Amino acid sequence: MPQQETDEQYVVGVDYGTLSGRAVVVRVRDGAEVGTAVHAYPHAVLEASLPASLAGSERPLPPEWALQVPEDYREVLRVAVPAAVAAAGIEPSQVIGIATDFTACTMVPTLADGTPLNEVDGLADRPHAYVKLWKHHAAQGQADRINELARQRGESWLPRYGGLISSEWEFAKGLQLFEEDREVYDRMDHWVEAADWIVWQLCGSYVRNACTAGYKGIRQDGEYPSPGFLAELAPGFGSFVSDKVDHPIGELGDLAGVLSAEAAGWTGLPEGIAVAVGNVDAHVTAPAAQAVGAGQMVAIMGTSTCHVMSADVLREVPGMCGVVDGGIVSGLWGYEAGQSGVGDIFGWFTRTGVPAAYTEAAVAAGESVHEHLTRLASRQEVGEHGLVALDWHSGNRSVLVDHELSGVLVGQTLATRPEDIYRALLEATAFGTRVIVETFRDSGVPVEEFIVAGGLAKNALLMQIYADVTRLPLSIIDSEQGPALGSAIHAAVAAGAYPDVPTAAKQMGKLRRNVFLPDEARAQAYDALFEHYVALHDHFGRSTTTLRRLKAIRREAIGRRLAAKEVD
Amino acid sequence: MPQQETDEQYVVGVDYGTLSGRAVVVRVRDGAEVGTAVHAYPHAVLEASLPASLAGSERPLPPEWALQVPEDYREVLRVAVPAAVAAAGIEPSQVIGIATDFTACTMVPTLADGTPLNEVDGLADRPHAYVKLWKHHAAQGQADRINELARQRGESWLPRYGGLISSEWEFAKGLQLFEEDREVYDRMDHWVEAADWIVWQLCGSYVRNACTAGYKGIRQDGEYPSPGFLAELAPGFGSFVSDKVDHPIGELGDLAGVLSAEAAGWTGLPEGIAVAVGNVDAHVTAPAAQAVGAGQMVAIMGTSTCHVMSADVLREVPGMCGVVDGGIVSGLWGYEAGQSGVGDIFGWFTRTGVPAAYTEAAVAAGESVHEHLTRLASRQEVGEHGLVALDWHSGNRSVLVDHELSGVLVGQTLATRPEDIYRALLEATAFGTRVIVETFRDSGVPVEEFIVAGGLAKNALLMQIYADVTRLPLSIIDSEQGPALGSAIHAAVAAGAYPDVPTAAKQMGKLRRNVFLPDEARAQAYDALFEHYVALHDHFGRSTTTLRRLKAIRREAIGRRLAAKEVD
Repeated sequence: MPQQETDEQYVVGVDYGTLSGRAVVVRVRDGAEVGTAVHAYPHAVLEASLPASLAGSERPLPPEWALQVPEDYREVLRVAVPAAVAAAGIEPSQVIGIATDFTACTMVPTLADGTPLNEVDGLADRPHAYVKLWKHHAAQGQADRINELARQRGESWLPRYGGLISSEWEFAKGLQLFEEDREVYDRMDHWVEAADWIVWQLCGSYVRNACTAGYKGIRQDGEYPSPGFLAELAPGFGSFVSDKVDHPIGELGDLAGVLSAEAAGWTGLPEGIAVAVGNVDAHVTAPAAQAVGAGQMVAIMGTSTCHVMSADVLREVPGMCGVVDGGIVSGLWGYEAGQSGVGDIFGWFTRTGVPAAYTEAAVAAGESVHEHLTRLASRQEVGEHGLVALDWHSGNRSVLVDHELSGVLVGQTLATRPEDIYRALLEATAFGTRVIVETFRDSGVPVEEFIVAGGLAKNALLMQIYADVTRLPLSIIDSEQGPALGSAIHAAVAAGAYPDVPTAAKQMGKLRRNVFLPDEARAQAYDALFEHYVALHDHFGRSTTTLRRLKAIRREAIGRRLAAKEVD
Repeated sequence: MPQQETDEQYVVGVDYGTLSGRAVVVRVRDGAEVGTAVHAYPHAVLEASLPASLAGSERPLPPEWALQVPEDYREVLRVAVPAAVAAAGIEPSQVIGIATDFTACTMVPTLADGTPLNEVDGLADRPHAYVKLWKHHAAQGQADRINELARQRGESWLPRYGGLISSEWEFAKGLQLFEEDREVYDRMDHWVEAADWIVWQLCGSYVRNACTAGYKGIRQDGEYPSPGFLAELAPGFGSFVSDKVDHPIGELGDLAGVLSAEAAGWTGLPEGIAVAVGNVDAHVTAPAAQAVGAGQMVAIMGTSTCHVMSADVLREVPGMCGVVDGGIVSGLWGYEAGQSGVGDIFGWFTRTGVPAAYTEAAVAAGESVHEHLTRLASRQEVGEHGLVALDWHSGNRSVLVDHELSGVLVGQTLATRPEDIYRALLEATAFGTRVIVETFRDSGVPVEEFIVAGGLAKNALLMQIYADVTRLPLSIIDSEQGPALGSAIHAAVAAGAYPDVPTAAKQMGKLRRNVFLPDEARAQAYDALFEHYVALHDHFGRSTTTLRRLKAIRREAIGRRLAAKEVD
């Protein structure tokens, strides 16, 4: 255990992911990450059923549900935070603040004191009493109705979300709760983002962060969707905002409160230290990558990609996820866009589309299948595989905002090899990024620099492809724990060690600038392929309904098979 | 060795494939196949080079070339025919006739006496002196010019070939020879289909069969392309037909001559027995499957599919390969169409697109990968995989006639499995067949029955898909050796054992009728998918040039890589 200087100050950032929480101890002076610990949620994600251990007897869940258990989040505070401090070899007394970031939109229904409803006597067997994780997709019907009504009424907030509200967000999930379990809805005092609930657990007070309130809670210019709109959506739903949603806002980097005695007991940290306003994992990565100025787009590239960028202008960008005042950095407009499938498309292909000879050759060469395919694919000239793909295996988040789309692969011959398809899939995601970058530019929000965070940054071929396809210099975050580092930066600001997040980001953020530069010859070759990508994009995304119809046909076919099975 | 009745009469059919020749001894009375033998061509297909053993020193061949060696064909007569007779356990004296079928268009340049030019002193090192196999694709430039000029001049024969002449056929290959090696061209007395050359070897006389003269030699209504057309194509080429091509025609089933003493010596068969007019492997399968009437479409389904069907009307069917008077059965119009990739697409996918877990599970279950995927795929409802594919991995022969097209796969998600793609590829070829069937029907040449021959007939799932997709009853040839059996039928007719091919086919052909019947519920489900196949077909095949452009981009990219390598 390395011994640290005792007069150094530290902060703790805690990143709540989909399956685990990670605590990182960071030096205030320079952002050095000195200790880390991860704790997996004991209940992970509940998708098939509520287990008997929670609900008394096992309760199956409908398709598309995804729940979590709030106590799992508290356990991260009790286990991972002390472990990270121990790993850092510092005294807990050296820690001056703590901040957290969370997946979003992940929603906790609570009583007035913050007690999650699943912990209330008699509600443990009610699915709607649990946390609805970001990837709970069972509220699509509600989202469709919200979008349709908002279009009809010409609601002014709709263009702030690229024209479409997601089924993942607060209002769709809240309406589902209202319509499917009115008793739980009526018992609920607050409909709380997990990002804010965990802060509530730390400091004992509920502060609604400006980021999720804007991106997920449809808060624009200080207002939420009106009672009239909500009542038209569903009788009795008109008071949803005033009853369950509206709450004082905290700007990012602000102090939410101080660490309570109870939370000090859990974490082993000093009672009374600063607790920052809650954050979202993607957005908080921006200061970790020193990307707090206009035109610096941060792409957090993992299974999916989230793009966040600040700007000093308000523009309506078609198909963006949203634009929020202070949504990334207080004082600037924060823009968000996304690609719903990136690394998970590559992973799917390596698992299901690569023959034994390749997996054996990878093992023989001491490579992963990804590394093996990347090495083979990197020998090609641009366009040599003769393929173009659409990267919509998980639908399209930006700029089409359509989860009913699916993947397309064009140009296969009997000479097409696995590394050809793999490279075409890498390129497809780069083309998808270029569509987003160009849409922002065309809407008056130019992207000047492309900064990559997340696990995919280590694939050099992929990074070079992104630079060549977008003609942008690529910088790479110099931290394995972008979100936790970003949270730590917020903790330092909340604790008063820095005057604001940009100043703290400059000292504590980690960025390798211009690691990949576009090559003009390759960029021109990609222009020719991109032209075909755009043609396919517009054909399948805008002109025909083939992909949507295929999904409908698939659902009907599965329904027939299940019905036939029941008859048997 | 089974002993056969000595008063039985037999015929020998010899099927010349791409890599080997197969002799089958068949009982005249009932078509029983009593003995068979296969002999592989020693030189197989020459694609990379002429070997030193033939040319003195090794001579590399340009891309897209495919040559063969005529002596290999004679060797089949010397080896396979006696072996088949021995395997049958009959006396050679019981054999009353022999007939052959061949790949086409496969061309032999010869002297006036039939000597192949590669056997002429001083020409053994000249690539153009060898046989140009059907899949020699180096005459595309010549084919393009023939088509363009024919269109400009409004040549009346062009619509008889669906509007396009293939680079595989006699005129494109002949023009290539004329333009690339004038000395060999000038030494050539006859430009002979291998189907006729082998008959010439058997009986000592050259008879040009009506089938290849029509389908491959642009002979329509007794005429070939005019001297004026040919001279406009290339100065000096105007006398190509009169000098090298034109020759008396033999109808299918006619006697070409009798077995010469020399050929009797090779084969061990009696001198003087009947030798039938030459045939093409696909077309001769029709009588073997008793498909000698109007509306009976025979699909020879292997790596690719060839469709042949007779009709009593002459119609111009867009995108067909050709219509020829007596092209399949003397006295009827013979129609031909094709799909350039079928079994080879399935083979490509099982080799390159199926992960180790599947190949291991197949081994564990004692199945081939094809069988394993078929079993998994057969559990699905129609449409359950959510995919539609275009089966153009080898281009499209009918009805688009475009070898620059390539494969497309639409609808992939992260839940897509190998068996899903496999089934989508099976279905894509069925949809391709339905397009052909509907095009014939819409042109006034209705298909009433669909008869399958070839190796793919044994895949029951594939056959049922074809029945459901086309809504046609599927019958299956009841012989493993369709072409050789068809040749044997022609031998019996040439020998006078039957008055004509239809009568002989009724006695000697082998067909299991209506083995697969369409299921109306599945057929309706396929209608919905077919609608999307047609939309993709027309979009990628007619509306956009994306696929052609991707091939061009691929060629340019490979060119850049090779150029860069040379600089190194």
